[in-house]
Amino acid sequence: MKALLQPESVAILGCSSDLNRISGRPLKYFLEKGYPGRLYPVNPNQEEIAGLRCYPDVRAIPGTVDLAVVAVPAERVIESMRQLVAKRVPAAVIFSSGFAEMGEEGAAAQRELVRIARAGGVRFCGPNAVGILNAFDAVTASFSEYLEGPVAAGPIGFVSQSGAFGTAIAVLARERRLGLGYYVNTGNEADIDVADAFGFIVEDPRIRVIAGYVEGVRDGRKLLAVAERAMALGKPMILTKVGRSDAGARAAASHTGALAGADAVLDGVLRQKGVIRADDEEQMIDFVEMFAHCRLPQGANLGIVSQSGGAGVLACDRAEALGLRVPLLDGKTQASLKQILPAYAAVANPVDLTGLSLAEPERIRRTMKQVLADPAVDIGLLWVRLMDKYADLMVDIIADISASSAKTFVVSWLAPPQAALTVLRERGICVARGAAQAVSALAALVRYARARGRWLADAPAREAAAAQPPGLRLPAECGAMSSVPAAAVLRSAGVALAPFELASDVEAAAAAARRLGYPVALKIESRDIAHKTEAGGVLLGVADETALRAGFEQIVSSARKRHGAARIDGVMVQKMLERGVEMVIGVQQDRAFGPVVMVGFGGVLVEVMKDVVFGAAPLTVSEADTMLSSLKAAQVLQGVRGRPPVDRAALCELLVNVSRLAAAAGPKLGELDLNPVMAGADGSVAVDWLMIPGKESA
Amino acid sequence: MKALLQPESVAILGCSSDLNRISGRPLKYFLEKGYPGRLYPVNPNQEEIAGLRCYPDVRAIPGTVDLAVVAVPAERVIESMRQLVAKRVPAAVIFSSGFAEMGEEGAAAQRELVRIARAGGVRFCGPNAVGILNAFDAVTASFSEYLEGPVAAGPIGFVSQSGAFGTAIAVLARERRLGLGYYVNTGNEADIDVADAFGFIVEDPRIRVIAGYVEGVRDGRKLLAVAERAMALGKPMILTKVGRSDAGARAAASHTGALAGADAVLDGVLRQKGVIRADDEEQMIDFVEMFAHCRLPQGANLGIVSQSGGAGVLACDRAEALGLRVPLLDGKTQASLKQILPAYAAVANPVDLTGLSLAEPERIRRTMKQVLADPAVDIGLLWVRLMDKYADLMVDIIADISASSAKTFVVSWLAPPQAALTVLRERGICVARGAAQAVSALAALVRYARARGRWLADAPAREAAAAQPPGLRLPAECGAMSSVPAAAVLRSAGVALAPFELASDVEAAAAAARRLGYPVALKIESRDIAHKTEAGGVLLGVADETALRAGFEQIVSSARKRHGAARIDGVMVQKMLERGVEMVIGVQQDRAFGPVVMVGFGGVLVEVMKDVVFGAAPLTVSEADTMLSSLKAAQVLQGVRGRPPVDRAALCELLVNVSRLAAAAGPKLGELDLNPVMAGADGSVAVDWLMIPGKESA
Repeated sequence: MKALLQPESVAILGCSSDLNRISGRPLKYFLEKGYPGRLYPVNPNQEEIAGLRCYPDVRAIPGTVDLAVVAVPAERVIESMRQLVAKRVPAAVIFSSGFAEMGEEGAAAQRELVRIARAGGVRFCGPNAVGILNAFDAVTASFSEYLEGPVAAGPIGFVSQSGAFGTAIAVLARERRLGLGYYVNTGNEADIDVADAFGFIVEDPRIRVIAGYVEGVRDGRKLLAVAERAMALGKPMILTKVGRSDAGARAAASHTGALAGADAVLDGVLRQKGVIRADDEEQMIDFVEMFAHCRLPQGANLGIVSQSGGAGVLACDRAEALGLRVPLLDGKTQASLKQILPAYAAVANPVDLTGLSLAEPERIRRTMKQVLADPAVDIGLLWVRLMDKYADLMVDIIADISASSAKTFVVSWLAPPQAALTVLRERGICVARGAAQAVSALAALVRYARARGRWLADAPAREAAAAQPPGLRLPAECGAMSSVPAAAVLRSAGVALAPFELASDVEAAAAAARRLGYPVALKIESRDIAHKTEAGGVLLGVADETALRAGFEQIVSSARKRHGAARIDGVMVQKMLERGVEMVIGVQQDRAFGPVVMVGFGGVLVEVMKDVVFGAAPLTVSEADTMLSSLKAAQVLQGVRGRPPVDRAALCELLVNVSRLAAAAGPKLGELDLNPVMAGADGSVAVDWLMIPGKESA
Repeated sequence: MKALLQPESVAILGCSSDLNRISGRPLKYFLEKGYPGRLYPVNPNQEEIAGLRCYPDVRAIPGTVDLAVVAVPAERVIESMRQLVAKRVPAAVIFSSGFAEMGEEGAAAQRELVRIARAGGVRFCGPNAVGILNAFDAVTASFSEYLEGPVAAGPIGFVSQSGAFGTAIAVLARERRLGLGYYVNTGNEADIDVADAFGFIVEDPRIRVIAGYVEGVRDGRKLLAVAERAMALGKPMILTKVGRSDAGARAAASHTGALAGADAVLDGVLRQKGVIRADDEEQMIDFVEMFAHCRLPQGANLGIVSQSGGAGVLACDRAEALGLRVPLLDGKTQASLKQILPAYAAVANPVDLTGLSLAEPERIRRTMKQVLADPAVDIGLLWVRLMDKYADLMVDIIADISASSAKTFVVSWLAPPQAALTVLRERGICVARGAAQAVSALAALVRYARARGRWLADAPAREAAAAQPPGLRLPAECGAMSSVPAAAVLRSAGVALAPFELASDVEAAAAAARRLGYPVALKIESRDIAHKTEAGGVLLGVADETALRAGFEQIVSSARKRHGAARIDGVMVQKMLERGVEMVIGVQQDRAFGPVVMVGFGGVLVEVMKDVVFGAAPLTVSEADTMLSSLKAAQVLQGVRGRPPVDRAALCELLVNVSRLAAAAGPKLGELDLNPVMAGADGSVAVDWLMIPGKESA
């Protein structure tokens, strides 16, 4: 990766003498941006390009080559790769298109390319890639239009799976004076993918924020590992991932050939690992700007100072919707503000500067400083508009406020004078377009600060969880496990189940019911019947022995009628539980992220509102708790409709134990459904469970 | 209003000879923008200002004066108003601040101002207003910085309650080349409010779209009447209303002195009347641009053509989230596209132009035209980026595509060349920043088109509903009505109730239960006990006569124990119903909008998810149906968890009948709660009801 992103020598295969062609642009950019390393244009038809000696073949180059830019037609790429192997070039960027993106024939060529590169020890970016830029070291192995302008290096590493979209995003970032230290387009990702690129870039001490535009995730666990590393380094990771909707996911899958994966899973695991997800490119740039320029807040309390009362209200609205707070200011602060502002100005928070500030901007300076100094305030937000006549003074005031406090401070400036905006951005002061955009980005900042706080506190639990895999016994045979053996696995993993006994005949059932206490449920037990209710094999609320005797016969004969060949192992007699909150907990194998745990509320909330959340296994207690808080109806756990609050610690423990089972089993556990889990004030137990071994269970 | 917004003569009271001061700017702007009418500066200290004769007093002006601009200090405003009355000036704009926005003393002065103006027949805008601009007729009775630049008149009427925020919005609109025909800031709204301004502007045939920035609504019914009128004229109305959150609403109330009102009510009634609500100023301008430039779509089917597969997916995601569709293209269209694009290009929808379009833009023209011609497509969306080298060609292509089809067509151009953007906007072609913004605005367009379609179809029902107020008998006494008389009112309004009988003693109760059939519910009936359950006055699921006899005594004694003085009128014996979908329906008096009807699902959905929707009474069947569709969990009505679908017509009828009762009763009905209403496959009936007469019930 170092050879790819920080090469000391670069060969350009297929380098054109026309430096405006795709195959000529990299050389132009290397020269323009002042690359200090060695450059070797390779083109058998030229003696010299742009004053540099040109080589007929990469093997003819005298010294070592760190990186090869491959800008030859598709049909010559494989031959070029063979030459790189021969020359022992460790890294390549392949511009050429005509591979997996073009159908099966191209995909076969791409597989051959990978085979040769792997065998020969060449790591590469592409094919069908716009290439890579390392702006710190003037490495411009790219034909992106972004490089036509100035590429000021800065603390942001940007990786995109799309060249066309990524380049436009990079240009938009430049318009905001955001310095991209790296801009990498990974193209078809035949070898190096987004996670690999992030993995290298995040270690560069000159980088403080990493951002990505992603269409599909192949190796989700690798991406999560990078996210963990970024979290350890305290470098925020911001992703825009398209393919949220069903239609979008289908389109994404057909477009990139990558597995789109269930978006809800991605959303959950990214949140779990503290990755900030942006909805679209505009929000991503808003977030990147905020993270690059602003200090992390110590809390979620916003102090708002505004030239328009309405804008302050708008900021309030958005803040409350996104989980921030707008606290009343301290009495002392309010008294000080009364000295600065007219008597009728609102000073409680939001603070209204009133129309006077339009003619007397100095009031803004004093007001905002007072608000930032208030102990109740973690974050200062200043909303101003226009002020063309006072552009320079406003720049001075804003820079002064920013320098005078260690707290997070953001300006929302509507329709600002362009020169003032540019100066402030160049000074690293975050200027948002509107109050709504400012607050959305601040909420992302708060989310990250909280996630990092939790992550740091959670280190011991994380290590403990990784160190103690539970013992696990899954049968060799495929298909759904029947309930009794599944119960043994679940119990050994520490998952609490509603008490039951297996009865082989009606007398045993009656005895079991006497021990368990009525009312009971009767459930057919058969390794051949996964869906008992549909088979007529379940009877709930059996009140007494008479009902039990009749019920026993009934469910056995129903099951026999519908599943003639089923091996019936008996009938489970299960204690009926007092009502708690009905929940669903599950494990599934995600194609990108492996075993993931799901939790949600039962009934209409899961079926209609789709109120579920996912996390990658294993979970720590803190992660499980955060998952529960992420549910839209999380308030239900605190007790609604006269119910007592759910024992949250017990529910978290159940989730953690399920997640450890999932992590230990890996792909051997195909699917686990605990539905319902009754979560009550005195613990959570699974009432029904279905365990389906995975394909690798043997 | 005509004198205010289209005056033929204007006097400027307090006109400064310094045309850059607030009191001098209107005259400067009138002269600069070429106002054709008569101008009379009024200032006792000047003979002449800017070459115009200056008058010492408005009464000294020889001819009639349509509009007076009042730019005098607050303490001289009332005297000025007296002079306007004397001179019979019909309209005024009052810049002066120092009234209701400054506390009680100012509020008293404002009341006096209103009294004099009303008595003297003067309508006025303000005080504390930035003023009004009618760009068509060069009426510049404003000191807004917006007027420092060119004020090209266009089909958009913009009204703002905030001068500071409104002016910035106007400047942003100008940056997008949107022509504001009117820009009105209503200030303190002592007389004329947002609805009045809209009411006049919407009738101007030069206006096609009206947009407003609103902090508080005083007279909601007037606003709804304007919305109805705008709908009748086919002119979309777009509002940004701040104060969504609790904190925001509190801040808004303290800021403007206006009643913020429950935001959910506002949201519901605006939707009911086809008003498009924008979240913030940026979205408002996005929407205004789309409505001003684009044809209304005939349906919700989007055809997407994109230079980046990922951008197409992002557009898909957003479209699906907002209720639009991205249908598969017709086989013939796909075949044609295969002729234009490389074999590997996705052509199903979204259509991926592939990298080739970056170098060969002509493919864009042919591809987009094919997609627009597809019968499955109602709306064309083209996503492009950068293309600096082909700016002129792209303008030509986009203008050509737009001219070649009668369908809605929108361009999302990321990081466009500025010159191309300006030319397209000047030509009236809608260019969105990103795919997400384009789709959000398109969704607003579709929502409006649907609302207007429904509104046109619904005209007979609307008239019928207005013509047939139900008979209504509310008792003179205050406080909650007991259930039996309330039931009579509800039944007379056509509201179905679960069958019950009132029993004065236990024998009567037993007889009633025999007639109704067990199981029954028993409920204490007392005009003094509104909350029966809390009083121990309710017993559900009474299975037989033994239980009934015990239960009767129990609830009567419980009620007596807790409400010693309560007059007990008997016990209601009510038939227990089969389970349906539990709903809540209510009526409340909104301070801005009067009687409003609420509907939502019962249980967790209403308590935790706040899944309710409001509409202004009376409702038509179509409006009631749209309310039900707006519920987040609307799918529940179609039958989930094995239930049959709810009889939607019966549920709508219930809602309509409740709404007609509410409309007929007006403020006499303080509150009505039907909770629960059991909505089933064979009708909807209220099981419990609580009716509280309003203050005007006598």
